[in-house]
Amino acid sequence: MSIRVIGIPGSLREGSFNKMLLRAAIELAPTGMEITTFKRLGDIAPYNDDVMAKGDPEPVAAFKTAIREADAMLIATPEYNYGVPGVLKNAIDWASRPSNNSVLNRKPAAIMGCSPGLGGTIRAQHALRQSFVFTETYVMLQPEIKIPSVAKIFDAEGRLTDETTRQHVKKFLEAFVIWIGRFKD
Amino acid sequence: MSIRVIGIPGSLREGSFNKMLLRAAIELAPTGMEITTFKRLGDIAPYNDDVMAKGDPEPVAAFKTAIREADAMLIATPEYNYGVPGVLKNAIDWASRPSNNSVLNRKPAAIMGCSPGLGGTIRAQHALRQSFVFTETYVMLQPEIKIPSVAKIFDAEGRLTDETTRQHVKKFLEAFVIWIGRFKD
Amino acid sequence: MSIRVIGIPGSLREGSFNKMLLRAAIELAPTGMEITTFKRLGDIAPYNDDVMAKGDPEPVAAFKTAIREADAMLIATPEYNYGVPGVLKNAIDWASRPSNNSVLNRKPAAIMGCSPGLGGTIRAQHALRQSFVFTETYVMLQPEIKIPSVAKIFDAEGRLTDETTRQHVKKFLEAFVIWIGRFKD
Amino acid sequence: MSIRVIGIPGSLREGSFNKMLLRAAIELAPTGMEITTFKRLGDIAPYNDDVMAKGDPEPVAAFKTAIREADAMLIATPEYNYGVPGVLKNAIDWASRPSNNSVLNRKPAAIMGCSPGLGGTIRAQHALRQSFVFTETYVMLQPEIKIPSVAKIFDAEGRLTDETTRQHVKKFLEAFVIWIGRFKD
Repeated sequence: MSIRVIGIPGSLREGSFNKMLLRAAIELAPTGMEITTFKRLGDIAPYNDDVMAKGDPEPVAAFKTAIREADAMLIATPEYNYGVPGVLKNAIDWASRPSNNSVLNRKPAAIMGCSPGLGGTIRAQHALRQSFVFTETYVMLQPEIKIPSVAKIFDAEGRLTDETTRQHVKKFLEAFVIWIGRFKD
Repeated sequence: MSIRVIGIPGSLREGSFNKMLLRAAIELAPTGMEITTFKRLGDIAPYNDDVMAKGDPEPVAAFKTAIREADAMLIATPEYNYGVPGVLKNAIDWASRPSNNSVLNRKPAAIMGCSPGLGGTIRAQHALRQSFVFTETYVMLQPEIKIPSVAKIFDAEGRLTDETTRQHVKKFLEAFVIWIGRFKD
Repeated sequence: MSIRVIGIPGSLREGSFNKMLLRAAIELAPTGMEITTFKRLGDIAPYNDDVMAKGDPEPVAAFKTAIREADAMLIATPEYNYGVPGVLKNAIDWASRPSNNSVLNRKPAAIMGCSPGLGGTIRAQHALRQSFVFTETYVMLQPEIKIPSVAKIFDAEGRLTDETTRQHVKKFLEAFVIWIGRFKD
Repeated sequence: MSIRVIGIPGSLREGSFNKMLLRAAIELAPTGMEITTFKRLGDIAPYNDDVMAKGDPEPVAAFKTAIREADAMLIATPEYNYGVPGVLKNAIDWASRPSNNSVLNRKPAAIMGCSPGLGGTIRAQHALRQSFVFTETYVMLQPEIKIPSVAKIFDAEGRLTDETTRQHVKKFLEAFVIWIGRFKD
């Protein structure tokens, strides 16, 4: 049995710590879980009802398809201005339509995040959880991954080298397998 | 004495109720307050640190200039997925840089919102307030404008016809004048 | 098979609308679900680590026992000052200890709320959900019960007479049965 | 000119770090600011509308008087279960009545917090700010005091010995003087 997970980084920059964290998750995923990163967040245009009424732009359609075909979502996000990065929220806004039957609906999910400062993306994660109440997206509660002072845990090649964090990511993904299983019908 | 206010709608669609609400504010503004709408939110690209490092794209520069030259900001926003529209948050993410000296810093602001459903944009407004703690943007506390079941209060031309709401917007803007005055140095 | 649910009202006053809502839930519960109201929230003293170190006061012990013996929790709460009533939060603070092995841990839950004003307890419910991330309490996402302008839906005896709301409470409790089932191990 | 500030600790336990933080603020207060600690939070009964209707219990009346006679409030709070301690919220719920003319209304305030863990009371502070939107209590935005891993910064007698934190508290209180001044009419 295999679990397909779509990994969604909340930051666009090349050297993003959250992209590194997602790569670490790919490396540390338990047997049977395959995580694929969605790399086109930057191609998704600003959400506009009038545009949507004419049909999803191609990158939006690709995003929706990637979510639909996955068993679960794994988001790795920074925090901007004590909230969700607009870039990530905008993609979620597209994916949430139509609201009565969206690809986010009843999809299991987990959220990770790391930040250079002290907060560890706490607020961004809570705001995402709040959005996912509306979309009925089943976000795992515990354990949480919210890493402050992130620069220290990756090496120059962007590889997660901190052993404590590696173990924590492993346990997080093992718990995620169980969580996803709860929502199989 | 004149107060220049930049009005920022959080929605891109042509027939947006929040754009109508902003037009009502323009009409009802007290003597001495001039509200100008920023109309280019849809031109602002997804925030990317790597892009910013090379200099603000032109629409971002225009947005920053409009905020810098205004005495205060007036945001009229819908709520998407129990949060701030990604489109609006993305523009704020750009405007917030550089974080130690941004155009949002120490700028007085007020937030309005209306929604077709019951919530009246309550959650989007609180999330914006949270972002504005980080940017030290002085958002007026009371009164609040958070209008549910919005369709009933505008006529077919998008004019605010509900008299109770018109009086409330007037009082809101009069309180805003006093609020802005508190932060004059 | 029978599901025992502990009902927890967030308000102490005799004529509380949320107590009425809980009584409606008791009346409308699906076959096999038995809801019992915890009536001693007002006996729970202000949380104090020093007191707890000497052992739980009797009303706290009774609260913990009631939660432990139930299969799930059903909270009906008002909103005070855009947040969770201190009374309810204080009881949760007691119940959450010890934090590594509390009665709240891995307990399924659902939240309802009604308010005289427009908000419908939206903010109180989100704040509770945030607390329940920490305690790993599995709160149902959808449907939600958040009722504004509540006075109209009850009769003089406090009976829920609004038929639309009665149907909504029924559907809510049927979904709750399924939700609770997901967390049976 | 003298500024009277009422200090409100959010924790009841004797050895509370937040009580220590408040004592440090008393020691480090700028000339002209006098901070007095309110010590009776534990005497305030669970909020109950029916009780309030008969008149404020004596400790509630004392709390309201202390706030009314102060020029500003300084709260030092821990975070319980990702939220405001119920004890503190309960006191605020009492103080907020009657809602159209409460002692919290138009009162300047500042919030500090420290925690043994990583979060530094971030979430408790945001939840308090949200309540204070309703009560129109003017909470200072920046700087913030949210201290993680708090045990290291106090000595065995509970004195704040960490020099960086001492300087930060000083700057915080100096900014608070200016903030309070903005709301003098």
